[in-house]
Amino acid sequence: MKITLSHGSGGKATSELIDQIFARHFSNPILNMMEDSAVVDGYGKIAITTDSFVVTPLFFKGGDIGRLAVCGTVNDLLMRGAVAKYITSAFIIEEGADTETLEAIASSMAKTANEAGVCIVAGDTKVIEGNGGVYINTTGIGFANNENIVSTNLQNGDCVIVSGTMGDHHATILSARMEIENDIQSDNAPLTDIVKNLIDGGIDIHCMRDVTRGGLGTVLNELANASQKQIEIEETAIPISDEVKAFSKILGLNIMHMGNEGKLVAIVPSEQANKAVEIMKNSKYGENATIIGKITNGEGVILNTRLGGQRKINVLIGEGLPRIC
Amino acid sequence: MKITLSHGSGGKATSELIDQIFARHFSNPILNMMEDSAVVDGYGKIAITTDSFVVTPLFFKGGDIGRLAVCGTVNDLLMRGAVAKYITSAFIIEEGADTETLEAIASSMAKTANEAGVCIVAGDTKVIEGNGGVYINTTGIGFANNENIVSTNLQNGDCVIVSGTMGDHHATILSARMEIENDIQSDNAPLTDIVKNLIDGGIDIHCMRDVTRGGLGTVLNELANASQKQIEIEETAIPISDEVKAFSKILGLNIMHMGNEGKLVAIVPSEQANKAVEIMKNSKYGENATIIGKITNGEGVILNTRLGGQRKINVLIGEGLPRIC
Repeated sequence: MKITLSHGSGGKATSELIDQIFARHFSNPILNMMEDSAVVDGYGKIAITTDSFVVTPLFFKGGDIGRLAVCGTVNDLLMRGAVAKYITSAFIIEEGADTETLEAIASSMAKTANEAGVCIVAGDTKVIEGNGGVYINTTGIGFANNENIVSTNLQNGDCVIVSGTMGDHHATILSARMEIENDIQSDNAPLTDIVKNLIDGGIDIHCMRDVTRGGLGTVLNELANASQKQIEIEETAIPISDEVKAFSKILGLNIMHMGNEGKLVAIVPSEQANKAVEIMKNSKYGENATIIGKITNGEGVILNTRLGGQRKINVLIGEGLPRIC
Repeated sequence: MKITLSHGSGGKATSELIDQIFARHFSNPILNMMEDSAVVDGYGKIAITTDSFVVTPLFFKGGDIGRLAVCGTVNDLLMRGAVAKYITSAFIIEEGADTETLEAIASSMAKTANEAGVCIVAGDTKVIEGNGGVYINTTGIGFANNENIVSTNLQNGDCVIVSGTMGDHHATILSARMEIENDIQSDNAPLTDIVKNLIDGGIDIHCMRDVTRGGLGTVLNELANASQKQIEIEETAIPISDEVKAFSKILGLNIMHMGNEGKLVAIVPSEQANKAVEIMKNSKYGENATIIGKITNGEGVILNTRLGGQRKINVLIGEGLPRIC
């Protein structure tokens, strides 16, 4: 069935769409109450984050917009050291979208929410004119126990760890748009296990960020600026799969500005860095974790190149890859 | 300045857009931290709701998409008897939108959040191809003290109260689309004062719903179904301004399916109904509150017409007025 503007009326067609797709896949006792807002157990300090997803294509190797929409928001909660608990799901659907497409997205969101340990507690559906596009906002609420994990917290000598290979999601989306056949898969994943294990393992995490649009270069610049420190990265230490390396070389892409959707950068005291890497390697989605650099006095982000030189890394300038997430 | 896809890159253009417009208007100590998620004070029970806004035109008599986006979500929290505390703001912007337009919307959101007593704690900005359209998701978090205010709670003999005139927002949007000149204004408003005063005044509210897309007829049907009761409404008791009455008569619109954005329906015990109406009349945006009907045994929604007949009222069928909110 095709979506029409009547599915956005708030009347009979809207409630049928909700009942038949979203309520069915997301079903849980809180959501099923269908009140104007959900009432759930709270906590002394809560973490809140919001993110909209406009990725195209909707389905790509290794994932889809639904999985992305859950992972992106869950990961933002985790980056404050919070336990991700609740998520909302708001769809803006263009006329002409297939209900089969919505069903596949909803099913993926439900599975990913389950994997990430969050409950979908509220939803909304709107319809606009267009050509079958789908946009999703997810907002996440977590229980916050570690509010000192912030970007102003970088200390001289701290180590910079990434949880895995860079650029996978970016290369996947670009391959799909250019219709290039390869085996590159998106890394879109919830980082729940890595973060839980680091915290339970007693790592004194100074800061965490997930590496999304803008890439590692943009994220590291934001952290360096917030803490007024320099971040020094070893080019040869940055993990990158052979396929993504070849792909980016052919197209002249800079790995420092290629987005991921299931990788984090963690800043930890140097004496705990090896232990942190071990913990990450033994966590789901962290098998390629490694130390890539350190915090020093100064400003900005410096890359020590494979040829022994130094290069300043800036934030992404220009449009990068539009609609990557 | 016109928005381009580079403003959605997550790099330099994105952070400049955020700094110059959203962060400037929404500025507060929580948001200004610019971390991946905001950490705020929690509570034992929290209310959560999400809503996207796709209204067109973006600016209309009496309001705009920004005011609407705050009011709609705040009101959904209030309808569970919660104290609205935090709100997130996620913009999906079409290429070609003016920064002046975004600035006016952000300014209106900030003012409305201030009026409604909520803090904007997190935001997101995405850019898609298009023609200058703007879509906003707001997600609200409140402290929940009255979780028994639910749609399954209607009791025989309860009175049905509306907080003011019906159809104003609907008639405003339709007038703007048809370029009809009149003095009708949207009622988009936060119902914070009405709800606070009802609760502080000791009214044992059984249920509340704001009357939005789908109109009073759709809302009342949802409540009747949830509680397995009949709702009997007096046609002559439904408050409607002379201008909206004339407008809907000329166009053949059914007031029962015309949306509002600053009105609620409250179900209260009959012995407290007059007191509740008095409290609402003395609250901001409640001056035209009145009793319009009662809960009885049976099912569905029945309208006692001005001519002495009875008519069954259904939920809205068809597309109603697309993109009304």
